[in-house]
Amino acid sequence: MSAPRPASLRGRPVVALCGGVGGAKLALGLDRLIGEDLTVIVNTGDDFEHLGLHVSPDIDTVLYTLAGLSDPERGWGRAGESWNFMDALAALGGETWFRLGDRDLAMHAERTRALHGGTSLTDFTTAMARRLGIAARIVPMSDDRVETMVVTEAETLPFQRYFVGLQCEPVLKRLEFRNAERAAASHQALAALRHPDLAAVIICPSNPYLSVDPILAVSDLRHALDDVTAPIIAVSPLIGGQAVKGPTAKIMAELGVPADSVSIARHYRFLNGLIIDETDRAEVDRIDLPVQTASIWMRSLEDRDRLAADCLDFAARLVPGAETGMGR
Amino acid sequence: MSAPRPASLRGRPVVALCGGVGGAKLALGLDRLIGEDLTVIVNTGDDFEHLGLHVSPDIDTVLYTLAGLSDPERGWGRAGESWNFMDALAALGGETWFRLGDRDLAMHAERTRALHGGTSLTDFTTAMARRLGIAARIVPMSDDRVETMVVTEAETLPFQRYFVGLQCEPVLKRLEFRNAERAAASHQALAALRHPDLAAVIICPSNPYLSVDPILAVSDLRHALDDVTAPIIAVSPLIGGQAVKGPTAKIMAELGVPADSVSIARHYRFLNGLIIDETDRAEVDRIDLPVQTASIWMRSLEDRDRLAADCLDFAARLVPGAETGMGR
Repeated sequence: MSAPRPASLRGRPVVALCGGVGGAKLALGLDRLIGEDLTVIVNTGDDFEHLGLHVSPDIDTVLYTLAGLSDPERGWGRAGESWNFMDALAALGGETWFRLGDRDLAMHAERTRALHGGTSLTDFTTAMARRLGIAARIVPMSDDRVETMVVTEAETLPFQRYFVGLQCEPVLKRLEFRNAERAAASHQALAALRHPDLAAVIICPSNPYLSVDPILAVSDLRHALDDVTAPIIAVSPLIGGQAVKGPTAKIMAELGVPADSVSIARHYRFLNGLIIDETDRAEVDRIDLPVQTASIWMRSLEDRDRLAADCLDFAARLVPGAETGMGR
Repeated sequence: MSAPRPASLRGRPVVALCGGVGGAKLALGLDRLIGEDLTVIVNTGDDFEHLGLHVSPDIDTVLYTLAGLSDPERGWGRAGESWNFMDALAALGGETWFRLGDRDLAMHAERTRALHGGTSLTDFTTAMARRLGIAARIVPMSDDRVETMVVTEAETLPFQRYFVGLQCEPVLKRLEFRNAERAAASHQALAALRHPDLAAVIICPSNPYLSVDPILAVSDLRHALDDVTAPIIAVSPLIGGQAVKGPTAKIMAELGVPADSVSIARHYRFLNGLIIDETDRAEVDRIDLPVQTASIWMRSLEDRDRLAADCLDFAARLVPGAETGMGR
């Protein structure tokens, strides 16, 4: 464990909203710092049925990352993975555009079995987190199906076709989160946001459009966030106008939004504070919110720990009555 | 290719009824000998849903065996298989009593996808056989679900629970083939049996109770067999009162039937001839059918070829007007 958590937050629950790879890195830092006081609400707009299996890419990235099973090079899937299933599937003429590793398959098979047996996605996910020795509670945004659809010039694509199949190449016009308005929030996600002692909500540096917006599109969760009195902060996913990984900057350009932290601050209307990279400090004065600069590129485990501690410190200082004295 | 096929059968279709391992060895010999003139009708009473996947153990054994992909040591599954999926599933607390190899999984995933998409099991199986370069047509007995249930003293068990889960340990009282009476035969299986030029039907040395009876329980197929005028022969699965592999002799004892070729001949009431092992020639006089002795233990590829040729020769000699002069 790295930096001690701020005294004002000690023992109080914290919620993180998280998509895949970038977000999971911060979630790992937070888990190492506050463990069982953390609830990570994860995007499931990318979930899909593939080869008869229920695949939850962001949940699995968070589970594998927090369990120390993820592949640090590839950014998704499991370390030391083998691909014999995929090779055999190719030989049978099967669909290979979405690659499933042999070990990773076990999670999808087990999840599919559980869901078919009537277990909720929330209960399955929390059980897997426990099984993998993760202290934090990992919960999906909803047990109901929400489908992120990417509207391009030419067609409307299911998320994975756009993201994996076409490598985000088509110009994105807008996103649709099918069934999000009708989907019930995961009861555990809702309970975490409504906890009377909630210390902070942290929006991880995931893609705001593809990964965080689906969570915010679930109306129960959006309303619960409106009622949160604890500080809500976000970590910008951009450094110098570029994402460390993924298509955030490309999508912002396609949506006609400047790829900078000012746009991120405007995108999340309910924020109480934003953490941006220290190399972007020139943008601080243009952001209409308390801003903290930090090193947000998480290369090492220590980077993750440090940024997690920065988030908690920042949130603690945003509490009314606490000293702030940073940003604007 | 080994022995030439008998002139009287040349170019005429042959049907084999087949279960798993033992039967598939003879099916391989027949495929090598007569290739595209062969239709193998395979038991699907062992099929089951496992981990959300549609598993067809006997079909896969036949496909893998005829495609040269099977594991000759283990007797089931694929050669050079890896088990990373299974190991990962065990770590997640999943069900591991039925072992699925990483490469084998591809077949189940592809089959499940096809069936969910509305493809029939027959069409999927024939397509896979083509894909794997198999000349023979491999067809399931039915596209409908038939479930082999094992009634023991204590309980009624689904087949795989008995066969794999409990390693055939409980004493078997009787078998039930659920839905067999209502299940429609695979149209290709039926067409093969009704072919006007049909030269022979060969019952492979599979377990008569567990593997062949489910096929015979499909009423369309049973009636089609009743109408067959070509010779119907079986290869005994027993050598000296023991099966080469599997619980045939144990089950016969539990059913109160002597484990010998006499019982096999009586079991298949519609037979025109039986092939028994040459070491069992003492039983010939007690069998009320034309009998051919042969070496039925198939250890080498040459053994498979030779037994296949023996089957075709025997069937050819059983045709009215042909010289017979063997057996009784």
